[in-house]
Parts: sequence; C-alpha cells; structure tokens
Amino acid sequence: MIPRYARPDMVAVWSPETKFRIWFEIEAHACDALAELDVIPKDAAKTIWEKGGAATFDIERIDAIERETKHDVIAFLTHLSEIVGPDARFVHQGMTSSDVLDTCLNVQLTKASDILLADLDRLLDALKKRAFEHKDTITIGRSHGIHAEPTTFGVKLAQAYVEFQRCRDRLVAAREEIATCAISGAVGTFANIDPRVEEHIAEAMGLKAEPVSTQVIPRDRHAMYFATLAVIASSVERLATEIRHLQRTEVLEAEEFFSKGQKGSSAMPHKRNPVLTENLTGLARMVRSYAMPAMENVALWHERDISHSSVERYIGPDATITLDFALHRLTNVIENLLVYPERMQSNMDRLGGLVHSQRILLALTQVGVSREDAYRLVQRNAMKVWESYHVSGDAKVDFLEQLLADEEVRAALSEEEIRSRFDLGYHTKHADTIFKRVFG
Amino acid sequence: MIPRYARPDMVAVWSPETKFRIWFEIEAHACDALAELDVIPKDAAKTIWEKGGAATFDIERIDAIERETKHDVIAFLTHLSEIVGPDARFVHQGMTSSDVLDTCLNVQLTKASDILLADLDRLLDALKKRAFEHKDTITIGRSHGIHAEPTTFGVKLAQAYVEFQRCRDRLVAAREEIATCAISGAVGTFANIDPRVEEHIAEAMGLKAEPVSTQVIPRDRHAMYFATLAVIASSVERLATEIRHLQRTEVLEAEEFFSKGQKGSSAMPHKRNPVLTENLTGLARMVRSYAMPAMENVALWHERDISHSSVERYIGPDATITLDFALHRLTNVIENLLVYPERMQSNMDRLGGLVHSQRILLALTQVGVSREDAYRLVQRNAMKVWESYHVSGDAKVDFLEQLLADEEVRAALSEEEIRSRFDLGYHTKHADTIFKRVFG
Amino acid sequence: MIPRYARPDMVAVWSPETKFRIWFEIEAHACDALAELDVIPKDAAKTIWEKGGAATFDIERIDAIERETKHDVIAFLTHLSEIVGPDARFVHQGMTSSDVLDTCLNVQLTKASDILLADLDRLLDALKKRAFEHKDTITIGRSHGIHAEPTTFGVKLAQAYVEFQRCRDRLVAAREEIATCAISGAVGTFANIDPRVEEHIAEAMGLKAEPVSTQVIPRDRHAMYFATLAVIASSVERLATEIRHLQRTEVLEAEEFFSKGQKGSSAMPHKRNPVLTENLTGLARMVRSYAMPAMENVALWHERDISHSSVERYIGPDATITLDFALHRLTNVIENLLVYPERMQSNMDRLGGLVHSQRILLALTQVGVSREDAYRLVQRNAMKVWESYHVSGDAKVDFLEQLLADEEVRAALSEEEIRSRFDLGYHTKHADTIFKRVFG
Amino acid sequence: MIPRYARPDMVAVWSPETKFRIWFEIEAHACDALAELDVIPKDAAKTIWEKGGAATFDIERIDAIERETKHDVIAFLTHLSEIVGPDARFVHQGMTSSDVLDTCLNVQLTKASDILLADLDRLLDALKKRAFEHKDTITIGRSHGIHAEPTTFGVKLAQAYVEFQRCRDRLVAAREEIATCAISGAVGTFANIDPRVEEHIAEAMGLKAEPVSTQVIPRDRHAMYFATLAVIASSVERLATEIRHLQRTEVLEAEEFFSKGQKGSSAMPHKRNPVLTENLTGLARMVRSYAMPAMENVALWHERDISHSSVERYIGPDATITLDFALHRLTNVIENLLVYPERMQSNMDRLGGLVHSQRILLALTQVGVSREDAYRLVQRNAMKVWESYHVSGDAKVDFLEQLLADEEVRAALSEEEIRSRFDLGYHTKHADTIFKRVFG
Repeated sequence: MIPRYARPDMVAVWSPETKFRIWFEIEAHACDALAELDVIPKDAAKTIWEKGGAATFDIERIDAIERETKHDVIAFLTHLSEIVGPDARFVHQGMTSSDVLDTCLNVQLTKASDILLADLDRLLDALKKRAFEHKDTITIGRSHGIHAEPTTFGVKLAQAYVEFQRCRDRLVAAREEIATCAISGAVGTFANIDPRVEEHIAEAMGLKAEPVSTQVIPRDRHAMYFATLAVIASSVERLATEIRHLQRTEVLEAEEFFSKGQKGSSAMPHKRNPVLTENLTGLARMVRSYAMPAMENVALWHERDISHSSVERYIGPDATITLDFALHRLTNVIENLLVYPERMQSNMDRLGGLVHSQRILLALTQVGVSREDAYRLVQRNAMKVWESYHVSGDAKVDFLEQLLADEEVRAALSEEEIRSRFDLGYHTKHADTIFKRVFG
Repeated sequence: MIPRYARPDMVAVWSPETKFRIWFEIEAHACDALAELDVIPKDAAKTIWEKGGAATFDIERIDAIERETKHDVIAFLTHLSEIVGPDARFVHQGMTSSDVLDTCLNVQLTKASDILLADLDRLLDALKKRAFEHKDTITIGRSHGIHAEPTTFGVKLAQAYVEFQRCRDRLVAAREEIATCAISGAVGTFANIDPRVEEHIAEAMGLKAEPVSTQVIPRDRHAMYFATLAVIASSVERLATEIRHLQRTEVLEAEEFFSKGQKGSSAMPHKRNPVLTENLTGLARMVRSYAMPAMENVALWHERDISHSSVERYIGPDATITLDFALHRLTNVIENLLVYPERMQSNMDRLGGLVHSQRILLALTQVGVSREDAYRLVQRNAMKVWESYHVSGDAKVDFLEQLLADEEVRAALSEEEIRSRFDLGYHTKHADTIFKRVFG
Repeated sequence: MIPRYARPDMVAVWSPETKFRIWFEIEAHACDALAELDVIPKDAAKTIWEKGGAATFDIERIDAIERETKHDVIAFLTHLSEIVGPDARFVHQGMTSSDVLDTCLNVQLTKASDILLADLDRLLDALKKRAFEHKDTITIGRSHGIHAEPTTFGVKLAQAYVEFQRCRDRLVAAREEIATCAISGAVGTFANIDPRVEEHIAEAMGLKAEPVSTQVIPRDRHAMYFATLAVIASSVERLATEIRHLQRTEVLEAEEFFSKGQKGSSAMPHKRNPVLTENLTGLARMVRSYAMPAMENVALWHERDISHSSVERYIGPDATITLDFALHRLTNVIENLLVYPERMQSNMDRLGGLVHSQRILLALTQVGVSREDAYRLVQRNAMKVWESYHVSGDAKVDFLEQLLADEEVRAALSEEEIRSRFDLGYHTKHADTIFKRVFG
Repeated sequence: MIPRYARPDMVAVWSPETKFRIWFEIEAHACDALAELDVIPKDAAKTIWEKGGAATFDIERIDAIERETKHDVIAFLTHLSEIVGPDARFVHQGMTSSDVLDTCLNVQLTKASDILLADLDRLLDALKKRAFEHKDTITIGRSHGIHAEPTTFGVKLAQAYVEFQRCRDRLVAAREEIATCAISGAVGTFANIDPRVEEHIAEAMGLKAEPVSTQVIPRDRHAMYFATLAVIASSVERLATEIRHLQRTEVLEAEEFFSKGQKGSSAMPHKRNPVLTENLTGLARMVRSYAMPAMENVALWHERDISHSSVERYIGPDATITLDFALHRLTNVIENLLVYPERMQSNMDRLGGLVHSQRILLALTQVGVSREDAYRLVQRNAMKVWESYHVSGDAKVDFLEQLLADEEVRAALSEEEIRSRFDLGYHTKHADTIFKRVFG
C-alpha cells in the first residue's frame, strides 16, 4: 500500500480493526448457531455478542499475544476471552482458523467491491454529465492517430460511459462470486461442526455458503475477482490515454483541470502536463499485474496449501486500494476536464477541409463521373491542400475554395452540391440515436 | 496453433472458409436491411443470398487478389462479385472493413464459446459420474501435502465439479459479452449507414448491437473474454496438479489410464508417468498468458488503432484451440482415471492410526482429563507410532494398540470409547449433505 | 506461428528438417566420443557420419513410425537405422531421449539468437545512419506529450541506438546462457554414459556442457532467454510508439514510408496510417507475454516433469519468429522513415517562441530583476502568445516581438540580449558530445 | 511493503532518510563539479558538503514544505537551504528534478542489488555446505514424480547451487546495467549544465554516465532489472517446491527445521507443514509479477512521461524487499533442513528393488538373450513385485529374490551377475565429477 495512492475508506477495509471486527462477528454468529443447535448455552452466545460487540479490540495486545503464540487466530481468541470472560470457552468450537480467515477475506473483498461500485457510479455520473454537455460538440474522430471523420466529444464520452457500465456489471458478478462463507473444518467435511452453522453465518452476514470448501475457499473465485479488477484497470488506462492524447501540445482539445491561480502563476503557460492521467496509466499497469499471481494461486495442492496467503496479503489491499484511488482520480479528472471546442474546430480546420474529400468523391461518382475521373479531380485539389498542410501544420489552401474554382468539378457539381458535402451535421446526425442506446 | 494440441471443430472456427462464410453472411444480411430501407433493390439482396449462399469461396483466388490489392476485405468482395455478378455492386454499401472484421471475430469467439461450453458439459458429466462412483471412497485429506483428516474421493471430485460449474457460468457471461455486432462506419457515427442495418444484422445473427463502437468493437469485451479463459485454464491446472500428486510413486492413489496392453508390455511397471496432466499444466500456462496482451489491447488510441489485430491473430485461435484441447484431454483423463481405494486406505494405515490423535485428545479432555495431561498421554503414544513411521514410511507400531495398552489412558477412556474415535465414518458423515449442495 | 509475421530463415530453425539434422549431429558426435572411449567400433562411427550425413531424412516416414511407436526419438532412430544399416545399433547407446531433445532445443535457440543478433545489427546500422543524417535536425523535445526544450532528431535516434545496443548485449548474454548441452541420462548422473561423451558433443557443437542436468537442462536458462526477448520487444514497442506519435495528423514530423505511387493514387492524402508501427506494438505485446509461462516452467518437479514441453512448443517458435519479424520490420521502418524537418520547425514555431520563456526569465534575474518582477514580465507577454495559440493551434502573437515591445523588459535587457535567448543552438550545442558517447 | 516479509537493511534502502541522503550527495557532488568548472564558488561547494554532510534531514519538515509546494525536490532543497544558509543558492544549478530522482533510484537499486548479492552468497554457502554433507546420500531421482534412477541428495543440492550461481551472475549484470547516472536537463541535451558535471557525479558515486538520457534514464534498464529478479524468484520457487515435495507425508525425505521443543509439544507429530517453502512459493509469484509492469514502463512517450513513476513506487521497494526476504528465508530453510537418509533408503526399498529392472534387462540382452525373451523374463518378475507394491505402498515381494529364484533368468545370469546389477554405486559413481564441475 502506497499512502499517496490510498483513500481512507478502502484502507479501513484492510485495517486490523476491521479484520478483528469481522472475525468477532463470524465467531459470534457461529455461537448463535451452535446455541440454536444446543451445542453451547444460549446465554453464552448472548454474553459473547454483548461483551464482544461493545468492546474495542486492543490491536497491540493481540499482536503481543501473537508474538508469543505465533498464531493470529489464537491470539485474537485469547484477547476475546479477556473481554468476554468464562463464556469465551464456547467460542470457535469445532472451527478451524481458515474458517475465520477465509470468510473474513471474502467479507473484506465484498466491502471493497461496494466501495469500488460506488466509485464506478460516481465515474458514470461524471461521464454522463459531461457526455450530455458535449453531445453536439463536434470533434474529429481519429483512427491510427490520423484524422478520419468527425464525431462529437459527447459520443466519445458515451463510449467511455458504456465501457464503465460493463465494468460495473462485471464487478457486480465478481462481487457475487466472492461473497461466500466457509465454516467446514480441517478438510471441508464438517467433521466437527454442523453444516447448519455455516448456513447461519452465511445468511447473517449476507454471504452464500460455499458448496464445497476444503479448509479453504477455492481460489478460482479470487482469481476471477482480481482478473475483473485488471480488466477495469485496463479501461481506466484507455480513458486516461485518450486524455493524455487530447492534452498534448499539438492537439490540446482537452486538459486536466488547473485552477485559475495555477494558470496565472506560470511563466511557461504551455507546460500543463497531464500528470494525473499519466499516473493513472501507471496505476492501471499495477492493478493489471495482480491478476497473474491470483491465477497462479488457484492450483493449491490437495485440500490446501498456504502459498496463496502471502500473495493475498499483497494483492488484497494493493489491488483494491489502488483501483479505488484510480477510479476516484479519474472521476475528478472527468468532472473537471477542461474541454476546448474551439480548438477541436480549429484542429479540423487546419487541414483545410480535407476531411470532406471522401464525400466529394462519392458525390462525383453519384452524378455519373467515372471513378477514375472522380479520383483525379478530388486528388488534384486535395493534394494542393495537403502539401500546404504537410509542411506548416496549417493548410494555407482551402479545399472547398479549390473545388469551387475547379471548372471540371463545377461541370459536375453545383456550388450548392459541393457546399452541402462540407456539412458536419452529416456525420453527427445519429448522436441522438447513440445517446438513446447508451442512456435510454 | 500447434497441430498436436488442436481439435478439428475448433480449428474449423478459425479456418478461412469459416471466416469468409461469416463475412458473406454479414454482407448479405446488410443487403437485406438496405433493401428493406430502399437503399438497394430487393432483387439484388435476393440474388446475393442465392448466389453467394450456394457458392464455395475459392480461398486461393481470394489470396491471389489480396496479394494484389493488399486488402483482405476488398479481395473477398472482388471474389464475391465474380460469383454474384452485377448485383455485387450493392454489397458493402456504406460499410467499412472493420464492420465486417470485428463482427466476424465476435461471431468466431461466440462459436468457440459454444464448443468450450460443450467441452465443459462433458467434463462436468465425467466429474459427476466419477464423484458418485466414489462418494464413499475414503481417502486422506491433505493440507500442506501432509495428512490431515479423512474425506472421500467423491468429495474431492464434487469440489472439482462445482469449480468447473463456476467456470461454465463465467464462460456463459463472457460469451454474452462478446456476442456483439458493429456496423457503424469509420468512427462509429453511422454517417454512411443507417443504424437499423446494424440492428438487423445483430438480430439475424444472434448478436446484440454494440451500443457505441468506434470503427471497432471496444476491446474490454475481448479482454474479459480471454481473462475468463485464463481463469478456466487455472482450474484445469488445479485438477491436473491434483492427479499428478495422486499418481506419484509414493502416493499412487490414482493414475491416468493405460490399457492392459500397455501395462503388459513394460519391464518397468513402476514407470507410469502422469504425462497427460503434466501436459495440461503446461497448456494452462499458455492459456493464462494470453490474458495479458488481451488486456493491453484495451487502450487503443482514440477511435482505434490497429495494434490489437496482430495480438488477436495469435490469441484468438491459440487460446480457444488450446483450451478446447485441454478440456477435452482433461475429460478423458477423468473418465478413464484409475482409482485405487485400497491404496488410499493403505496410505492412511501406514501412519498407524495417527490421524485420529486429535479426536483422542478431545475425548480425554471431554471426560475431564486436564489439557496438559491429555496432551502428555496422546503425545507419548503418538510419538512411538510416528518415530517408527518416520524412518520406514510404515508405522510398525499401532496407535490404537498403544492407547489400549496405556493404563493411564484406559483409566480415563474405555476400550469402546477409544475404538469409537477411530471410526472413519465420523469424518465422512456429511458427504451426502455436500453432494446435495453440489448436485441437488 | 502466424505466416504473415514469419520470415523463412527463422521458420527454418524450427522446421522438422533442422530438428532431425541436429538430432543426427548429436547422435553422430556421441558415436565419435563412444568410439574414442572404445565403447563402440570406430568404423561404426565413421559409417554413421557418412551415411547419415549424406542422407535426407524423410519427414513423412518418421511421422509414420511415430504414429506407431508414439515416441519421436525412437521414430527418428528407426528411420536412421534404415539409412545407416546394421551399424545403427551403436547409435544412442546409454543416452535418453531428453539428452537429444534438450540439447537440440538449445541449439535451435542458439541459431535463433544468431538470426536475432544479425537483425539487431541491421537495426543498429539503420539507426546510426539516420541518426547522423539528422544529428542537427532541430525538433522539439517533449515531456508528458508537451513541448519542453529543443533537441535534435539525431539525438532521439541516438537514444534508440544505445537502447538497442543494450538489447544486443543482453541477447549475447542470453545466447551464452542457453548454449549448453546435456548428455547425462535419466536423472543426470551419467550412470549409463561417460561424462566425456557430453564434453565431446559440447565442444563439437559449440556448446558448453551443462554442469548439472537432471535428465533436462534447467529451465531458469530458458526463462532468462525469453525474459530477455521480452525486454527487447519492449524496446521495439518504445521506438514504434515514438513513430506513431510523430505521424499523427497534428504532429506529422515523420511518417512510415509510402511510395510516390501510393501517394499519387490517393484522394485522401491525409490518411497515411502508421500501420507498421501499430503492428509492431501488438507484436511486442505477444513477445512480452511469453516471458511469463517461461518463468513458470522453471519449477519443474524433482528431477523433471514434462509440463515445460508444451509451453516450449508454442513459445520457442512464436517468440523468436515474432521478434525476428518485428526487428526486421522496425529496421525497414527506420531505413525508409520519411522525416520532415520543416514541419518540426513549424510545430515549434506554432507556439510563437514560448519555448524560450524559461531562458528569458533567467536572463532577467541574471541582470538583477527580482524573481517576482521577472515572473510578472515574462508571464504577461507569454500569456498573450499562449492564449492565441491555445484556441487556434497557431500563435498569432510572437513572443519575441512582444518582449521587444515591452518597455519594462527592454529597460532590463537589450534587443541583442533578448534575441540571443532565442538561439536554438543553445539547446543543441552538446549533440556532438552525445554522439561521441554513443558512436565513439 | 508487507512488514512481515521485510528485513530492516532492505527497508532502509527505501526509507526517506536514505533517499534524502542520496539526493544530498548528488547535489553536493554537482556543486564540486560546478566549482571545478568555475560556475559556482569553491567555498560554497565546501560549505554545502560540510553543513549538509553533518546534518540530519528533518523528514517531517520536508513533508510540510512539500504539502505547500507540491514538489518533493523543491521541498528538499528548501530544507537544505535552511541548513546550509546563503550558499544554498548555488545548489541544483542547471539541474532538473529528474536528474536527482532518476539517479537516486538507480543508487537505491544498486544498493538493493548489493544486499541481494550478499543474500545469494549466503544461500550459496548454505547449499554448498549441505551439498558436500550429502554428496553420497543416496536418494531416488524422480521424473514425473515417479521413481526413476538413484542419485544423491548432494547432487540435487549441487544443481540448486549452480542454478543460484547463475542467478548471481545475472544479478551482477543487472546491477551493472542499472548503475547509471543522468544529469542532463529537461530533455537530455545538457542545455543548462555541462556534461562534465554528470561525469563527475557518476565517478564520485560509483556509477556510469548514461550515454543518452531524455530527462529520464531509459526504462529498458529497469525492465531488465526486474525481469532478472523475476527469474531469480522462479528459481526460489523451484527449490521451495522441491522441499515441499520432500516433506509430504508419503515422502518425508526432508523437512523444514523445527526445534526439539516444538516437536516435543505436539500431539499430532505427523502434522509438520512446510509452511516456509509454501510461503516462498507465494512470494515468488509476487516478485515474478512485477516484471510485467516494469516492461510496460519502457515505452514512455517521447522524451518522457511520468507513467513509470507510480509503478516504481510499488515495485522498487516491493520486488527488492520481498526477494531479499525470500532469499534469506530460503537460506535458513536450507541451513536447517532436516534430511532423512534412512527414509530416502526406505522409500526406495518400498518398491522392492524394481528400480533395477532396467539394468537386469540390459544384462540379459548383453549375455545374448533376445530382446523379447529378456522383456518377458524381467516383466514376469517385476509385475509380481509391482502388484504387491501397488496396493499396499510396500512391496511384500523382493525383485532380487524373484530373479534369483527364476530358473530361466539364472540360466542366463549367475547370482553374482544379478546381484551386481543391484549396486547403487553404479548410479552415483560420477557424483565426484559433478561436484568438481560445480565447486571446482
């Protein structure tokens, strides 16, 4: 966990306090079930809930006991017995440490998912708001980094919106996969504990009982979870990369926010670096990388080995904390993104109308000019524009003017017909259709 | 594609024949929609279906044209016009190559998914059959590779069953994600084609229209798809690893099938190597590795760049063909797995009953022996058994006999009480519960 | 192996013909050594060399035998005996299949390395040539995609040159690591074969004897090899990405080559897509991904398992063939890269001289203007330039003119002093130093 | 960084104290060079060394300044000026933050390498010591987890020794690659600083000057570094996996150390889990995973973007701290490994001598028995042994006795000849050769 890339709510999910609170709840719910089954006294269960529920667990004390016993769950139970008193002897009956540890991890991942889902909701809100704001803001669409055909900035953001909506759906599925509970004993046979205890805890804690656990909850669930985070991170990278491109000096159609104050203070006004989205690109690499060890964790030996544990100590917090931070940062970037419609227009204009060459070609062939002639006509006008653009980055020659002045072109197409092919609305006429698909 | 790890049905999904057939269908469905919209004559659409539908596309001819035109879709359309005649001029109107290419890829991945789903169904059948066969076959459960508590071989297989059922559910979701269609033009704005064409093709081909495409279908869908295959491969690795462990000389509780003939011919009968499951372990590594480039493909530049294309030429076929082969091989391994219940029993017996030490300890404390004394009693008997096992791999001393002969133990527990703790049924009493959870 | 990303020399390394030729050489050299040790007759060794050396191995015949025997090495030896006659019984004495297979793989990887080294040499030549050609071609250096300070295009290429020189050094090391030979028997103990046979083969084939093999050559060597290819691929990606950036419409400082013919034929002259370098980006992702399974191959069980084998059937050919193709393609891109110095200049000019703001600030403080005042002076002039650039992508206001017209600035600095800070030579004065470091 | 997997020396490399000390040294050495070039007064350089060298930097104070300035290097320089006084104005002249940051990172990675090299040396010592101790300890060699031919435990360890020696060589190379220094300004052109400053700092700090930097040191160096750590981690995994196998209940030829005390206290003496080596397996997965983002960091945009920075904040500390811990833990495991030669022998014996079947087969054919007959003879005796082993895990029938009692066998081979084929020394006769190769 890198403090500068961590937000308190997600950090709290992974704190010892949270962990011990979850452990307590698992144990206390187990006591309820055991009491219900007449394995332990009902009063004991009640006392455990009351005293444990009211207590603040003393992390340092637990750590001290662990240093002695070299066992984290025993250390906690010892401390719990200090709080609960004699009835503590009814706690953890028939359970193994993994019952507590694995169920707790899944509760933590479920809590982490809820934070991430809220993050995605905020991001979706921001994208939707900015998408509608720029539904009709015309900008060039680019393939291969080269101007292709016009689109709108709102359509770009609508694309990001549906992409993150898919991310949200995937996370909902991953959360459901991971929200399981195992209270099944040393090799998962319920030899020492009634399966109904597991069922009770599952229901009480909003989980499902793991159909078959083998001391541990099977790690394909966790692999899927971290793979899902990795895919979400890849979508973060995509949107971040888009903004980095838009902010580069030669494009500058959008910029990460900077306050007026910031702007005013600089003697190098051109040096606004897209550092937030560059940072997001790096963070995405990290979240993505955690999928691989999570997948290698699946093939535990026989009923379990403990090789997964160290991996999860890293990637449990690191993947969720980093993605939470990244989604939050991306949301802020989107909410505050400076968008420059004038520059979008001027970037298109700098090519002197070449973006319309394809439509003119079509128009010529539609009125009966042969394909070869149409090509020749378009080309001789387009090349003049292009050559001037190519050298200077700013066409001094205008394609429309060229065409209007080309007698052979004019013989085939009227001024009206030519001008109509320079209508940007042709390209953006379905923006509403797209928005309806995306936002309903 | 490695021929030895490839099965014909899945190879066929990636053949040029399949690809061109899908291209044809996309184009022909587009003609239907265009005809319906009165953009092209209805007769033309009909002719295209009739002539194209009846034709066998000549791969060599298409390749020859591509060598000239350097463009695969144009080469195909040229060949199609040779087949269809003059009406071919109505084909591909307003469409871009990516409309065809990307929709085709998703159709191929959908077909691949169907094969993989059938593979999983066969694997699930095999696991279920063998699980019921061995529901009550007692075997030792192992944590850390060390004997823990007894379970049954059927429970082990039931675990694998639910794991692959989860894999199946994930693949169904991944298939649904990838089953989309994009017919939206150069930057996804439908500038030159009516969105209803896309909707028609989607419906006709069992796909959904991509809400926003940008010349290409967004690659987060593909990333999720290949990540899902990677997780499935990790589960393949897990089960393969289990069998490799079971087959090792010292364990030998199960073996990959070998025919009587094979067996008869060998002068080294101990040398039956689990080569199929070792192979599966390697294949799993490959399928897993393809998730990473698929995720890096997500962040295409602006409306699209073509960096994803080469990656998909590799991993499209390689991931699906390899996983299909692996699932098929794993199914055969499971169907024909030689299982040795006697050896399972003898492996447990070799520890002289030590597996029951925990229950004796509990029994002693339950009748009022102090924890310290109970420990001492169990330990002094257990250690004798262990020391003999440790050196020879075969306990010459029996734990039960030791206990029965230990006066201090007998003072606390009757012979009956001691013997009852050596009942294996105690551990397997919930096998039915587990089976009911898994198989209903 | 994807044919379109494969070149014949590297493909040949992985052909059955090459493999069987290497197998033959290993076996024949072994015979020499065995004859020298009087284990087999000297005449036999001679006959084997003569008959086998002259023969063309019949792949189909060998395949037919393998289908029967289910063993590739036995199939080859059977075919060899058909060629050599009775003396063939002296072939392979005391050896195991892995002796042949593993040594052969390393010979193939060594051959592959030699091709890759030659590729790198050609790439280095191309980079050096173009670097000197553009040693003094001034271009803007960019950090974060934003204009920073001027550099030269030659310095950019010199950077790529040293980077690929490092790649070359790494590959030389990786080649040396992989150039080993193991002829040590079933578990590497030389039980059935004299270690001198291994030493002879190693020397004869330009390899080193593996200090300890365990039936197989340890896979950390191969992991290092494929990790090295992965790093080289990452450098390919870097240079490819640079060119993709330079070719984008708004930058257009360089372009992948297109012939005059190509250019002449287009009616969309702006649509020159950097498809080669985009393709290289994708290929780099693939080569990089192969490092992961190669590393997972290291931890084989005990003296060996065969899980590595399927992985190597994929990545042996795929990684080397793909990287060979990528290096070759990149070399062609560099050799033929269209470089536009005028556009480099005009891109810089479009910011109206803002790139020099930092030097003016310094100049002011050096003549005694307070830091605050200097800031204010630079800023009020810079902002005018910037605002005009920001909207239009082309500063209508010139920073130098502004400064010369600003009385307060002129009170501190003479026209001469101001103009001198606009000298680009200030930034490129050490290009020669850098070139001397790189090219000697 | 996970505290439980971190050792203080390596943690110290990444502490703010170390970082600021390195920053100071870079700045102070730069002052020396600048003074030598008469850019700043010699007295100033002297004062800076004296006051800065004697000072303890106040981390909290620097953090407070950073919170204000939002710039780490400026915060440090401000604090330094508080310590040094007016001469501080000569610090950092002509330098950029990255000069300090990137050079510092490489100094840290170099220091980390030195610790890792010392770790490897300790591991090599341990392996060598234990290898010689068990040079002649006979144990079964296994391929595919199946008994193959005998080897010695010392040879196994000798294999690990050469493997880690290769790891050491690779790390030496990676350290050399990373030990560079860049003091070259905003885009690496030395516009504002003399290249001799860089050369002086490099020499003073035991680094090499980076031939071409571009504000940053090229990240292919770091990619190679982390890839090297990943390969080393894979070798850690291999040795850890070997020990996990050896410790499993059914094998138990070696065990992670446990103190007599530990042993004495247990009532479940069979439950000694190889938790340290399982943990190492997980840690290896983590270190391996960090190679991927390091490789993705290579393709920074143009002269630099800052996407690498967040990645390095994670993997710089995490990869080195984790690998340091893992190597240390592995060394302890090896130093204290409990090795059980008796069990090695008994494990072999349990197969009743079947391991020698191959040699008997050979002996029969060598005395003229036909291959078919030899097979039949060996097989009919081997199968009896095998069948008894197969069921019970302990052959009740002895292969040698069977052969001696088989008249047809005895007709071909004398008792002496048969017995001689059961000599284990045949397999281990070259252990000395192997040790000479490895240890010289």
